[in-house]
Amino acid sequence: MGQLRIDGNRLWGRLDELAQIGAIPETLGSSRLALTKEDGLARDLVVSWMQQLEMKVSIDAIGNVVGLWHGPDTDRSLLPVMTGSHIDTVRSGGRFDGNLGVLAGLEIIQVIREQNISTKHPIAVSFFTGEEGARFAPDMLGSLVYVGGLDLKTALKTTSVDGKRLGSELEDIGYNGTSPCPGIAPKIFLELHIEQGPVLENEGVDIGAVENVQGISWTELIIEGQSNHAGTTPMEMRKDAGYVAGRISTYIREISNKIGGTQVGTVGKIDLVPNLVNVVASKASMTVDLRNTSEQMLREAEDCLASFCDQIAFQEGVEITNKSLARFEPVEFNQQLVDQVISTAENLGYTTRRITSGAGHDAQMLARVCPSAMIFIPSKEGLSHNPAEYSSPEEITAGANVLLHMIMDAAEVNS
Amino acid sequence: MGQLRIDGNRLWGRLDELAQIGAIPETLGSSRLALTKEDGLARDLVVSWMQQLEMKVSIDAIGNVVGLWHGPDTDRSLLPVMTGSHIDTVRSGGRFDGNLGVLAGLEIIQVIREQNISTKHPIAVSFFTGEEGARFAPDMLGSLVYVGGLDLKTALKTTSVDGKRLGSELEDIGYNGTSPCPGIAPKIFLELHIEQGPVLENEGVDIGAVENVQGISWTELIIEGQSNHAGTTPMEMRKDAGYVAGRISTYIREISNKIGGTQVGTVGKIDLVPNLVNVVASKASMTVDLRNTSEQMLREAEDCLASFCDQIAFQEGVEITNKSLARFEPVEFNQQLVDQVISTAENLGYTTRRITSGAGHDAQMLARVCPSAMIFIPSKEGLSHNPAEYSSPEEITAGANVLLHMIMDAAEVNS
Repeated sequence: MGQLRIDGNRLWGRLDELAQIGAIPETLGSSRLALTKEDGLARDLVVSWMQQLEMKVSIDAIGNVVGLWHGPDTDRSLLPVMTGSHIDTVRSGGRFDGNLGVLAGLEIIQVIREQNISTKHPIAVSFFTGEEGARFAPDMLGSLVYVGGLDLKTALKTTSVDGKRLGSELEDIGYNGTSPCPGIAPKIFLELHIEQGPVLENEGVDIGAVENVQGISWTELIIEGQSNHAGTTPMEMRKDAGYVAGRISTYIREISNKIGGTQVGTVGKIDLVPNLVNVVASKASMTVDLRNTSEQMLREAEDCLASFCDQIAFQEGVEITNKSLARFEPVEFNQQLVDQVISTAENLGYTTRRITSGAGHDAQMLARVCPSAMIFIPSKEGLSHNPAEYSSPEEITAGANVLLHMIMDAAEVNS
Repeated sequence: MGQLRIDGNRLWGRLDELAQIGAIPETLGSSRLALTKEDGLARDLVVSWMQQLEMKVSIDAIGNVVGLWHGPDTDRSLLPVMTGSHIDTVRSGGRFDGNLGVLAGLEIIQVIREQNISTKHPIAVSFFTGEEGARFAPDMLGSLVYVGGLDLKTALKTTSVDGKRLGSELEDIGYNGTSPCPGIAPKIFLELHIEQGPVLENEGVDIGAVENVQGISWTELIIEGQSNHAGTTPMEMRKDAGYVAGRISTYIREISNKIGGTQVGTVGKIDLVPNLVNVVASKASMTVDLRNTSEQMLREAEDCLASFCDQIAFQEGVEITNKSLARFEPVEFNQQLVDQVISTAENLGYTTRRITSGAGHDAQMLARVCPSAMIFIPSKEGLSHNPAEYSSPEEITAGANVLLHMIMDAAEVNS
């Protein structure tokens, strides 16, 4: 049993086939924002693969999909061992982020079936709705609803960046299922994912055992100034919402430098009104993404931002309103499972290190209801949320092998 | 003759009627970007007024419209005295900017006709295509072509911010005329305009005699960084095009403070790609608007910007390319006409001051080919390029009366 390995070529092939849906021309990347037509087509493909593997597919009311596999001797009354991730992407995303965790789960089911292995516990492979948060906030929305962290009604009313309601978009692609939310807490949850950062590659390490996840704070700021002529308005009389947006953007860098450690901060979105060369902007909307592994330091960063907004609003004569788009405290994974990622990987001959996740993941939601952990593999140049995101077939195979043996162990192979 | 006054109510009524085309609901403002359907309808209305006044309407190949009036004893072989401005607006514009100068011209023709006044020189009232530059760069495009500062072919190929070609947009609204470009240089050119700044109102002065116009420098910057995950990418490894755009925006404020005097600088337009909360921006495009009455200082500001771009591109690992969207040197108006604006206004009982224009105007283009000057009236709170732009009926009447007497003098009333 210790010799068992997944089929890397087959997994690579499925990643490639899935990436064709919403493919970004001349890149390896994909564009499948949550609950778009492309997301719907990708869901159909993955569900068809689950059905080919004779998994029982259920869809819940927020569109999370769970494929359940039973062997001939599986005790269906026991909690399933669950793995999975997501298949939505950011607007210009890669082919590995999320997709790898889902398709590695299917590969594992296929290997287990082919080897006529029977497990005591059922095995579930799931993909969760809207993990990226790029179309509907907050991110990890589907898994958050799955664990009862957000009520279904509120989630269905969420409005997308393009002004659509989540509930109706879900209906449009036919994934408004009937399984209840919150869903059943599995025995354990494991998620294989690319690192999306540079650490493993820089250190030449094969497998990262994810100990914890950074806390995330997303804020939308609306700055109301006064539209005016760019030539005739003296600098000291301006209420320039565009300038204030720029200044907040540079302040976020200052916060990150000041707090240091794992603190990161990003202004990824700025929209000016009327957005013309010769008009002082009357309005700016922008987002601020702050992350830290320490809840205390994350709060400090948030406090700095709030004070700075008050101060610059006063100085520049603008009004600034803020709205929290997402807020998750840092998460610690199950230490026993983290240790087991290390030992399993080392038994398979891979090099390992403990690591922190800078990104949010569905596993951190499942950690609220069951022992959970994550397996990271290297990302080329640390790139992610980018069509150039890349991990090699060997790296992917290594991660999927660790996942295979972790799952077989947790599902308890019948001898 | 010195007692002659324009009819302020009639002028106010025409301003109101014109403002209904592209009216912005619940404001006094209008939205009539150059060569849109709304601009076409506004042109039709003004042309119909010219025809009612029995003016001879000609349209040139770039869509500039000239209405020519002859009295019974006018010598048609003499150069016309020209007044005029523009009727296009920025996206969320006011009802006075440009429109006032054109409709005051029509009001003057109407008064002269009603009083059976005859002038030696013909009088022309014109409106020029695309003065605002909000849809097609550069601004003052129509008057620039009129004076031969830009060749017709190049101008017709200009692409709008919404991706349309100027030539085909001109055809669509039926204003691709047959009069040649460049057009005939008039005897003199006078333009009545709102100040679009706060000086006259703050000082309680009725009439500004515009001595000069600030030089204008518009630059588009394209910043190419690297798209990456906002959570997992350490701050020092980022190539964040969004941060660089923000930093350049705040630097423009620093340049303006450093150079001082009449120097102003504005970043009115920023577009990030992919413009998502959790993705470090791979690309930013932005505009920089720099203005100064001194060509030397304007060059200094441009040099500062260029050096800063080089420096920050190196520091942040991004590439910055720049493109000049418009560049006009400062303009000095005809000092004899400027003096005459002062004396004419004072004879009419108005208070006056010499003033600099911070905005570009068609008159600065006409100044290349004939003696030119401008008359400013106060703008409430200095607001312009804003639906709240406002000048009172009394202020407008004052400005139009000064224009009336300047024109009658230049056109030489037959006794």
